[in-house]
Order: sequence, then C-alpha cells, then structure tokens
Amino acid sequence: MTWSTAITKIEPNKITVRGHVLSDLIGVTRFGQMVYLLLIGKMPEDKVGQLIEAILVSSVDHGVTPPSCVAARTVASCGTPLTSALAAGILSIGNFHGGAVEDCMQTLQRGIAMQKDGLSPAQAAEAIAKEAKEAKKRLSGLGHRLHTDDPRTRRLIEFARELGLAGQGVEQAEALVAAIGKTSSKTLPLNVDGAIAALLVDLGFPPEAGNAFFIMSRVPGLVAHILEERRREKPMRTIVPAEAAYDGPGA
Amino acid sequence: MTWSTAITKIEPNKITVRGHVLSDLIGVTRFGQMVYLLLIGKMPEDKVGQLIEAILVSSVDHGVTPPSCVAARTVASCGTPLTSALAAGILSIGNFHGGAVEDCMQTLQRGIAMQKDGLSPAQAAEAIAKEAKEAKKRLSGLGHRLHTDDPRTRRLIEFARELGLAGQGVEQAEALVAAIGKTSSKTLPLNVDGAIAALLVDLGFPPEAGNAFFIMSRVPGLVAHILEERRREKPMRTIVPAEAAYDGPGA
Amino acid sequence: MTWSTAITKIEPNKITVRGHVLSDLIGVTRFGQMVYLLLIGKMPEDKVGQLIEAILVSSVDHGVTPPSCVAARTVASCGTPLTSALAAGILSIGNFHGGAVEDCMQTLQRGIAMQKDGLSPAQAAEAIAKEAKEAKKRLSGLGHRLHTDDPRTRRLIEFARELGLAGQGVEQAEALVAAIGKTSSKTLPLNVDGAIAALLVDLGFPPEAGNAFFIMSRVPGLVAHILEERRREKPMRTIVPAEAAYDGPGA
Amino acid sequence: MTWSTAITKIEPNKITVRGHVLSDLIGVTRFGQMVYLLLIGKMPEDKVGQLIEAILVSSVDHGVTPPSCVAARTVASCGTPLTSALAAGILSIGNFHGGAVEDCMQTLQRGIAMQKDGLSPAQAAEAIAKEAKEAKKRLSGLGHRLHTDDPRTRRLIEFARELGLAGQGVEQAEALVAAIGKTSSKTLPLNVDGAIAALLVDLGFPPEAGNAFFIMSRVPGLVAHILEERRREKPMRTIVPAEAAYDGPGA
Repeated sequence: MTWSTAITKIEPNKITVRGHVLSDLIGVTRFGQMVYLLLIGKMPEDKVGQLIEAILVSSVDHGVTPPSCVAARTVASCGTPLTSALAAGILSIGNFHGGAVEDCMQTLQRGIAMQKDGLSPAQAAEAIAKEAKEAKKRLSGLGHRLHTDDPRTRRLIEFARELGLAGQGVEQAEALVAAIGKTSSKTLPLNVDGAIAALLVDLGFPPEAGNAFFIMSRVPGLVAHILEERRREKPMRTIVPAEAAYDGPGA
Repeated sequence: MTWSTAITKIEPNKITVRGHVLSDLIGVTRFGQMVYLLLIGKMPEDKVGQLIEAILVSSVDHGVTPPSCVAARTVASCGTPLTSALAAGILSIGNFHGGAVEDCMQTLQRGIAMQKDGLSPAQAAEAIAKEAKEAKKRLSGLGHRLHTDDPRTRRLIEFARELGLAGQGVEQAEALVAAIGKTSSKTLPLNVDGAIAALLVDLGFPPEAGNAFFIMSRVPGLVAHILEERRREKPMRTIVPAEAAYDGPGA
Repeated sequence: MTWSTAITKIEPNKITVRGHVLSDLIGVTRFGQMVYLLLIGKMPEDKVGQLIEAILVSSVDHGVTPPSCVAARTVASCGTPLTSALAAGILSIGNFHGGAVEDCMQTLQRGIAMQKDGLSPAQAAEAIAKEAKEAKKRLSGLGHRLHTDDPRTRRLIEFARELGLAGQGVEQAEALVAAIGKTSSKTLPLNVDGAIAALLVDLGFPPEAGNAFFIMSRVPGLVAHILEERRREKPMRTIVPAEAAYDGPGA
Repeated sequence: MTWSTAITKIEPNKITVRGHVLSDLIGVTRFGQMVYLLLIGKMPEDKVGQLIEAILVSSVDHGVTPPSCVAARTVASCGTPLTSALAAGILSIGNFHGGAVEDCMQTLQRGIAMQKDGLSPAQAAEAIAKEAKEAKKRLSGLGHRLHTDDPRTRRLIEFARELGLAGQGVEQAEALVAAIGKTSSKTLPLNVDGAIAALLVDLGFPPEAGNAFFIMSRVPGLVAHILEERRREKPMRTIVPAEAAYDGPGA
C-alpha cells in the first residue's frame, strides 16, 4: 500500500462512505447531506442538507444563454453521447462563468480574517471595497447583467436565517454590499453566486469547493437541455440563444 | 425566433423552470424533485423526490477503483482545474461503466411491452433470458464482480415499496432474476445498476436519461476524490488503485 | 508484467517508437510519416508522409461555423485553459460532424470486398447505391451543404495520383459518384471527407482511425480560433457564426 | 456583422486560410508550415515548417507512463468514442504535464528582455537563476526524472542550427543551463520541453501557444494508445503503467 484514501471503504457486499454504511443511508439521508458528508467528512444534521439542497436548487438552470448550455447543446447537436455534451458544458465553467462563487468565498473569508484583527464586519468590508476600487477590480458575487434584485439571493439568505445557519459569511456579504453602496453611485446587490458563497462559508466549505456546487447544481439543467436538443432539433445546427422562444408552461 | 425551449423562462428578476418560479422552490423543493421537474417537466410529490435522492445516494461513490475515479484523479494530479478532472471522470462513463442503467431500462421496458401482448412478467422474463443465452449476450444490471448480494439493491427496492412507488419495472426485474436462475447454474442477483433501472422505469424516465442518474450521483464522489488528490498527493503521480489503503473513519 | 504495448519503449536517454530511435527521426522524418508510423507500425516512404500531410492540410479549418469551432470558442470565452476549450471542440466531432470519414471508409471497404466476389467497381457501387436508395439512407462522403464542387477533393485525388498512391479506394469512390448520378436526378460530388476516406483506404488505415485524421487536422485550426477568441473578444460572449465578418488578408 | 475573424474565409467552392487558397496548398505546403500559417498568420519558408515538424516529431509519444496516456487509455477502456478518450488525455495537460513549454518560454523571453536593458545573456541567466534559487522555485524546462541527457534536446537544437533558425531563445536557454550549473552542485540539462520552448521563442510564437505544440505533437501518440487499448485489452481495466512490457519491434 503506497497511498491512502479517507473517502470510501469497499468490501464484498459492504460500502462504507466516510464511516457510514452506504446502504443504511438509502432512503434516510438527503442528497444534500450526502454532498456534505463526502466533501467535509462528517454527517451533518438534516437542516444542513436542506440548505445545501436549497443552494443546488437555486442554480439548477438559467435558460439557453449561459455558455455551459450553448457548449452542451452544440456538442449534443453533433450526435455525440450524453457524457460528451455534458463534459463540454462543465468545461465552460471557469473564471467568467460560475467561478464567482470561489472568488467571493475568498473575499468573504478575508473579511472574516480581518475581524480577528479587531475590525468590525463593516470596517473589513470598507477596507476590501476601497482596495478593489483603487485597483479598479470588480468584486465577484455582486451585480448581475440582467437581475437587479435577484429573488433567489433574498430567498437563499432568508432560508439560511430560518434554519439558524446564517453566520459570519452572510454578515460579511451584507456588509460588503453596504460598503460598496457608500463608495459607488450605483448599488450592486448580492447576486446568486454571492449568496451561495456566503452560505458555503457559513457551512464551512473551503473556497476550492465553490465551483463544485455550481456544477452539481447545473448538471440536471444541462442534461435537460441535452435531451431537449436531441428530441426537438435537427442535427448539426448552430445554437443562437437570442433566437429561442420559451414555449413551456406558464407560471 | 427560430427555435423553442420548454425548460426555463428568463425575465428580469424572475426565473421560471417548467412553469415554477425558481425562487419559490428554494427551501421547499428537494433536489430530487428538481431533477424530476427538469427531466420530466412536472413537479412530483415529495416521495418521488425522496426515491430519486435514494437513487442518487446509492451510487455516490465506489472508492478508488472505478475508471471514472482513476481518470479524474489522474487529470487532477497534473495541476488542472476541477472542471478538467471532473470532465475526464464523466467521459469514462460509457458502455462498460455506468452504462448498465440505460441498457437494463431498455430490457425491462421490452419485458413490460411483451406483457401487453398477453405474456406474464415471468413469461416475458423467460423469453428475454432464453434469447440472451442463445445470443451468448450478458444482460446488463445483473451480477457484480465484487458484491454477490449488494445491500444497496435490496434497500433501494425495499424503500420504493415503502413509498408505494415500486411497479412493473421492479416486478419485471425480479422476474428476470428468477428466469436467469432457472436457465443457469449460477445465480445472478440484481446489481445496483439494475435496481436503479427498475426504479427509473417505474418513475417514468426514458432509458436515454439512465446514464444521467449515474453521473448526477457520482459527481460529488468524484469532486471528493479530486479535492483529496490535490490535498494529499504529490503532483504527476500514477494512480494505482490496488495500492491504496483506506485510512478514513471506521463504520 | 501483466500487459503489453507495442508503441514506444522508454529507457534512460533513449526513446524508441515502433522500433525507431526517436531522436534519429528529428529533422529527418515528416510529421505525416510519424502519424503513419504510430498508427500502422511501420515507417513509410516520404511520399506517404506527403499524402498524409496533404490530408491534414485539407481539413485544417473551415471558419467559424462548424460546431467544433463554436464549442471551442464558447468554452474559451469563459476564461478557461486552452486544453478545456480544445477538448470541448474535439468532443463535438461525432456522427454528424467529422464522422463521415469513418462511415465512408466502411462503405468503400464494402465495395472493395464485393469485388472479391466477382463484381466490377461499378457493379459494387451500383449495388451499394441501390441499397442506400431503398433504405432511404444518405451515403457519407458525398454532397456538401455549401460546396458543390469542392476544390480540396479534386486536388487531394489528383495529388494521390501524382504520387502513385491512388488505388482501389479512389476507384471505388469515383464509381460510387457515378452510380449515384445514375439513380438520382441531382449529382452528388465526392466531398472532402469522401476524398480523405478514399485515400485512407488506399494507405491501409482502418476505418476506426478515420475520425483521428479529421481531429489531427483540425487541432491547429481550433487552437488558432481559441487564441483569436482570447485576444479579440470580450469574455462570456455568445458566439453567433452568422454575425462574423472576415477581416483577414485577401487571397 | 458584430464580430470579426481573420483566420479563414468561406465562400462556395473556395476556402481561404490567412489569405491562401486552401486547395492550392494541398500537396505543396507541409503540415508544419500550415501550423505556422494558422497561428502566426503568414506563410513561412519550408525550413520553418521543417523545424516545426521536428518539434512535433520529438514529443509524439513517451510510452504508457504519462498521465495523458493513462487518462486516455482509462477512458478508452470503458467503451467510449475516440473523442472522449482523446479529450481526457488532452485535459491532463496542465501545469505539471506539458505545461513546462509555456513556463520556460516566459522565462526565456524575460531573459531576452533583460538583454535590452544592457545585460549579457549570461548575466540575465544568472539573475534569473539566483532569483529562482532564493524563491526556492524550480525553473521549468530543466532536468528530467529519467533522462539525464535527453538526445531529443540535443538533436532539436542541432537541427535548428543546421537550418539557421537558432537565435536568442536557444542562446538564453544555454546560458540558463550554465548559470544553474554554477549555483547548484548538480547539473540540470535542458529537457525536451526546454528545447521546444527555446525554438518556439526563436520562431516567434507567443508563450500562450506553447502547450498547443505539446498537444499537437501528442495527439497521434494518444490515438495510437487508444486504438491499441481497444484492440488488445479487455474492457474496464485498471491501467498500471509499471506492469506494462514492451513487445514491439527492436531498434
């Protein structure tokens, strides 16, 4: 034995994930708890699983315009397997698409670390906002091309409060919005990536796992697009999102 | 407008998925229900979401030996982004790894179709088993290299029965195991792919979505392996699963 | 030792590919010969390398419309590494894009096999054309959406003749065009995929390697598009091929 | 028209790449020249094409141990299409595998830039070596796990000299080896990545294209491994490079 793994132990007729017999979890453990168990290593309370599923639900799809959808549909259009189209969609998740979660988690953790040096959340937020303004750098997790007041953001934060799981991450994120509001003429609300970042910080996830949540959330959405592409469209077509009409059920 | 999509409608500050306002679903709808909503188009009862999450939990990880894990860790070992390693893992899911779900769903649907022609589940199963034997073709969803009596299989079927969601798919799968037992000296139990196939048939999913469930289930497991690879191992190493010891918590 | 490879032997300070010391080939062997050496296992004459390079040159790029270009640019637009964008482009090469080479090679090999049963190339072609017409199946390698008389096709066949490398594959391909012309009111010329298929058959490559030639040829084109996307365009944009103007040098 | 491309102009029956009619290049232009034309935008002399092909030949394969080969074979072993296995191999090319070319090009360009400030190549190299030593950073392009005197390196540099194409890149690379030799007890020879980096600098390629050359070179090698895996091995196997024997032809 030359290396070790602490994730899953495999024995004949027995699979143990992070110390829990997998078959005992079936029908008992939510998918959201399972994600926490796998990435953090401990079985969380049910409410942690609920909050994780709320996060996964919030980013499950955003229509045909995101690059991940265009890439997945383009590849699906060529008669390829589901895995090829899905892989192409996932590969588009990078610095400029989905990557805001990881970035924003780092910013929030930095603010929280400043608080250990005696700054209040507001002071830490103002220092970060000032620095970004001077460096002419846009902070991730704030503002949105289309949504000026994203209801997903508000609902996610509210739900974390209902569960008693909102902590320093949410506090620091809200302080940041306030600090930016002071230094800038235009208000930049927390977007859904910023809200997810705040909640993941409060749940104890490391920033490097941030993109994973966006991906886990978006996979079923991408699968839905890939299957729709196969069923409704002719092969080898160019996907032009601006030419797509929505013809599904009304709200 | 030159084409249509029935998945998600995007308006400023409003996202509607399959006719449901997304922000209203946050904290209310399980991830399992969301998967059904996206792929089938209707919001299911909570218990359907529970069964889907049971399926997702059952295949979340299988240690370091599956090719998807080896591929993901190999790519992660080269200092690549999470998305690259995850895409490589997903690309390994094909005919011989994960693909059994889709294959087995087709077999079960064929058996169910035969029942419409007047055959009993047992007669349909015997016809399919005989045909496979004559063609020297191994039926997907039966037997396992390591697990002779996979507790995940039993628990999944049992849980579907508890929820009142086991139907013709489960019946046909069990008839198939019995039919194979008659024609062959060695018993071939239903494996976890076969159990998932039976439940997905009973939930009304099309076979072409079968692999998607394996992928959605395995993504958090692959992410856990990728993050572990980065944290614990030196770069550019060869992943030899047979040399890995489990050093995580005991059951 | 539990398995074997016949491709490359690695020793300290010595790399031997298919029996040839790699450092001795540098500056002597064309890239086209190297492709043959790797895939067939023997070092070919220089003229075989010339013909392979002619094939690789012929499909090196086709502007911004092919799905492989759209997928690669879409992923590149998200701030991802070169490898992610390139992988997405390659993943789009499937049944409906690039796959014609493999399909057409199989058709031509079938025609050649029929000749062993006493049919002339024209008779074999007529049998294949008749069968396709009856099955309402379009034969791969014939006809093109845009090019009614593709100069690449003519030049590739002509060059193979100049080198004395055109054989039964070319003969069967030309017989097929003639046979289709007889059964159909509209002429279907050999397209560039069909020409490549004919030449690969004459060079002795197996059909399963057909797509590989399209990929090897297209990789530098995709790299050029990825680098151009990064340099000239804003991040996270939607790639609409129909809105692209050519602003490069004139012929 | 909302955006522009300077790569390829598509007209009916006419494809013009960087101002050159593609069909006129078939049989005339080497693949190496084509790569230069696509990435730099101008048609180079034949000898530039020869040097590029020498680079592509030099890294075409390195047996079964590189992660790109393990990833490609692992995915191929699952019964997936060629494109899936190839994409997985390419995705493993990152910071620690293949990435040395880009890194080393940046180092060499920095050394050359220092010369504009009046330093000799040796002085620039010594400044870079000293800085790396102080930062305890390993310089890319120097040293190799297995090859202490890589004959590919020597032959590549020699061939560039024969063609009259070795310039400041090669000079700076050799100065760097000498500078490291002075500050360290153990000699670190230029490895093949370092040699390729030096030549690409002298040919005028930007560092961001560095990895592309490793990929273009390795694609035929990966294809050979994928086809061999399919033909010779059982599905769903674990690839253990240390257990592979070479059974191909002798030198």
